[in-house]
Amino acid sequence: MTRAWLALALAACAGAQPSAVSARNAISAALTLGHAIAEHGTPAGLPACASCHGARGEGLAAAGYPRLAGLPVSYFGEQLDAYAHGSRRSAAMQPIASLLGARERRAVALYYAGLPPPRQRIATGAQALPVAADRGARLAREGRWSERLPACSQCHGPDGEGVGEHIPPLAGQPLAYLRDQLGAWQSGARPAGPLGLMGVIAGKLSAADVVGVADYYASVGPLGAAARPPSIERGGGAGPASAREEAVAGARKFEPPPRGSEPSGELGRVIARGERIFTETPRYARAYIGNPLRCESCHLDAGRLADSAPLWAAYVLYPAYRAKNHHVNTFAERLQGCFRYSMNGRAPPLGSPTLVALETYAYWLARGAPTGVRLAGQGYPRLSEPPLPPNYARGAQLYAERCALCHGIDGAGQANAAGQAVFPALWGRASFNWGAGMASIDQAAGFVAANMPLALGGTLSVQQAWDVALYLDAHERPQDPRFTGSVVATRARFHDSAESMYGRVVNGHLLGSGAAAAPLAR
Amino acid sequence: MTRAWLALALAACAGAQPSAVSARNAISAALTLGHAIAEHGTPAGLPACASCHGARGEGLAAAGYPRLAGLPVSYFGEQLDAYAHGSRRSAAMQPIASLLGARERRAVALYYAGLPPPRQRIATGAQALPVAADRGARLAREGRWSERLPACSQCHGPDGEGVGEHIPPLAGQPLAYLRDQLGAWQSGARPAGPLGLMGVIAGKLSAADVVGVADYYASVGPLGAAARPPSIERGGGAGPASAREEAVAGARKFEPPPRGSEPSGELGRVIARGERIFTETPRYARAYIGNPLRCESCHLDAGRLADSAPLWAAYVLYPAYRAKNHHVNTFAERLQGCFRYSMNGRAPPLGSPTLVALETYAYWLARGAPTGVRLAGQGYPRLSEPPLPPNYARGAQLYAERCALCHGIDGAGQANAAGQAVFPALWGRASFNWGAGMASIDQAAGFVAANMPLALGGTLSVQQAWDVALYLDAHERPQDPRFTGSVVATRARFHDSAESMYGRVVNGHLLGSGAAAAPLAR
Repeated sequence: MTRAWLALALAACAGAQPSAVSARNAISAALTLGHAIAEHGTPAGLPACASCHGARGEGLAAAGYPRLAGLPVSYFGEQLDAYAHGSRRSAAMQPIASLLGARERRAVALYYAGLPPPRQRIATGAQALPVAADRGARLAREGRWSERLPACSQCHGPDGEGVGEHIPPLAGQPLAYLRDQLGAWQSGARPAGPLGLMGVIAGKLSAADVVGVADYYASVGPLGAAARPPSIERGGGAGPASAREEAVAGARKFEPPPRGSEPSGELGRVIARGERIFTETPRYARAYIGNPLRCESCHLDAGRLADSAPLWAAYVLYPAYRAKNHHVNTFAERLQGCFRYSMNGRAPPLGSPTLVALETYAYWLARGAPTGVRLAGQGYPRLSEPPLPPNYARGAQLYAERCALCHGIDGAGQANAAGQAVFPALWGRASFNWGAGMASIDQAAGFVAANMPLALGGTLSVQQAWDVALYLDAHERPQDPRFTGSVVATRARFHDSAESMYGRVVNGHLLGSGAAAAPLAR
Repeated sequence: MTRAWLALALAACAGAQPSAVSARNAISAALTLGHAIAEHGTPAGLPACASCHGARGEGLAAAGYPRLAGLPVSYFGEQLDAYAHGSRRSAAMQPIASLLGARERRAVALYYAGLPPPRQRIATGAQALPVAADRGARLAREGRWSERLPACSQCHGPDGEGVGEHIPPLAGQPLAYLRDQLGAWQSGARPAGPLGLMGVIAGKLSAADVVGVADYYASVGPLGAAARPPSIERGGGAGPASAREEAVAGARKFEPPPRGSEPSGELGRVIARGERIFTETPRYARAYIGNPLRCESCHLDAGRLADSAPLWAAYVLYPAYRAKNHHVNTFAERLQGCFRYSMNGRAPPLGSPTLVALETYAYWLARGAPTGVRLAGQGYPRLSEPPLPPNYARGAQLYAERCALCHGIDGAGQANAAGQAVFPALWGRASFNWGAGMASIDQAAGFVAANMPLALGGTLSVQQAWDVALYLDAHERPQDPRFTGSVVATRARFHDSAESMYGRVVNGHLLGSGAAAAPLAR
């Protein structure tokens, strides 16, 4: 809560660009003002926030009044502004917000941001069990990628706990509130938000979806009206959830087996372990990683999504010769490469439980796929050449507009309050290293074109995809583990291609020369 | 050349059961007599053998007269007897053989058996290259298993060099002679031989097959009229060779890709290496084996044959849970098990070239097969229960009648003159150990019923298959590598099943207690 909106809030409170001391004073004054409005309303007669949202901002589930405590200050301030300006419509909130001054709205946001949020269930609860049997839990945790609908958890955090300044918590908000907000996006009664994302997403939800996902998040947190553990039974009918989904699925060449159809017994346990490693890599493969990415960061929908290097399409193409190491690689060795490069770690030994579980999970996803046959959706799409040569400056502008919301203007990604990386770092110390496939511009462009921004895959032009791919691959990142001791020699040996920026000078910096986390090209 | 027929020959020469000294004298006398007939004919006016078959018994290719030098004494003696008695018909040989006495026939056979055979091309030539493009080479080296026609090399040795007392060399015999013999089996002009095998095999050959295979063997050896290296080009049209073959193939659920369709480049080389390891295991995986078996000993047709535990059906079923070691095994680990048990050796390390090549070869054979799906022909057939409990004595009798010809009455298999095991040992030191799948009676019975005797699979009754499986698995063999130090405890832990004879007492011997090569139950 220390960035753009907060700077504005402080400026509004203090009436000037604050020094360190005046900033402290301004915050103190704003908190006092916000506290007063929250508990007592305004002298002009506006009611206390607490009268509907509870003494500690905990909300009132029975009435559908959301919790306010712990909301991101930017997000909350923007919502109050939207009510005040009429772009977010609410019979209750519009009159109140419009009668608050800008300074008062920011003070209220600042006050509630500082209240402790209710204790959340920790991620080892719901998240450790990868399969959800009911519609809401599935949407929340797995999405419906056949319609390119990502899981709610992919932006709102594994437990819907909220991430950063712009992505609010969902867990524990009242069912009626969550349901109404999704309805408001569908009807246009609420602005679609950054990148128009929530408008797109809500537009893909059926009435049953809306109720299901609202019910799910209402029940996850301790504030939920009918708190219950999320349904996680296996073996439920996990088929397509809507006619549209079925139609989309029918157009694809291969579909991995539905979630919940895994075998029972030890094989099923190993498959589940593989899926957990894949989706929560930092937790389940800690010994082998050097960054907080997850396998799923580059292989969306738990490795199921076509055009996102799906596991099922890769599995059936190994053993295969790879120019990268000049020999025939088994699938197990290919997985080792992911750890070495994309995860910037070290390879789990052949036969280790980690590698066996991942191989077994991939095998399961490939069930029924023809051995040795290239399937539609394999790898990332191979883009056509862009009309103009990829351009750093255009990429930088596009990145700021379309990518930085989630990945940060510094490319470092975003974590939730517990420190779990929710949005992967695209460069810098916490990102994949120079040896990763994603460090090749063509690979990144293909991934971006098909899948980015999340849930908005296919919205960028070919030119834009190449531009932004060049931009993100033109930043420093951890050294290629095959480093020979010389950037020039390493480029000549492993990166002698127009697709790699390794060894190129960008903004005066020799890429590959280290200082991975130095802020470059801002 | 020291067994039944030789004993008879010596007895005929010496007129009595020979002592060591009298045996030497008898052999010496027979060789003198044989030499005289071979070079000068008989006093009664029969022509010298050498007049047609050459001074050193090398044959006369242009006239179609076969080489005699180095023929197995039993085989040659039996042929002369068959000419003499009229069961083998030949305008040239019948009158001569019938005018020789039994003693003279045996002397001639003994003489020619002792002549050095012409130098053969060694196996590293033709055999090291696994794919043959033309019909004759394919039949000779690969057979046509869709019609359950084994390769000629499977009995006559990798280079057609002949094996043991009953299986003559083919390599270097004249084309016309080989062609005429196959024709004679087809027409009944020559006895079908042991088990009637050659009658069955010749009956499956078309006229083109006969010429092709005769031409192949005629050209392999240095005596061939038109000696040339066998055709071994890849990529030739290796489709089904006859309408009948196509019809049979059409009835099967999965067909591995045809030989010769392998990819080029490094992947193709690794596939070829895997096939070589599979078919010539003692040569290409020497470091990891403890017996002279080949992978192909139990997985016929280079791992391609349905109902013979084909590689393609196994490949798509891994990773899988195995009760044998209580965890999920990758295919690589499953292969390791073959080395540990069936090959009585040690497991090649995960990622070793040997294991990667075998996995890659299996992957190739499974090309197009659906991942994770059990295919028709997987494993060995599961037989129904026999009408009577499996019986050792019945098994012993059947073994002597139908199995001992190839595998030896002592179960030790048979090697060619170079010491290469052509027929695998079924028990004793050179066989699979107690931990192998084939040491389970039900597995052995399934294999036998489907595949044994070679080329005569399906000819035994269910009862016979169970009886002979019990018999061969009721002999001592190398210790189970999981041995706990106690046969009783090892049985309780790993062999507590009616399918294992381990730990049972047979003919006064506790199976599993060692002395693997001791001749038991003769």
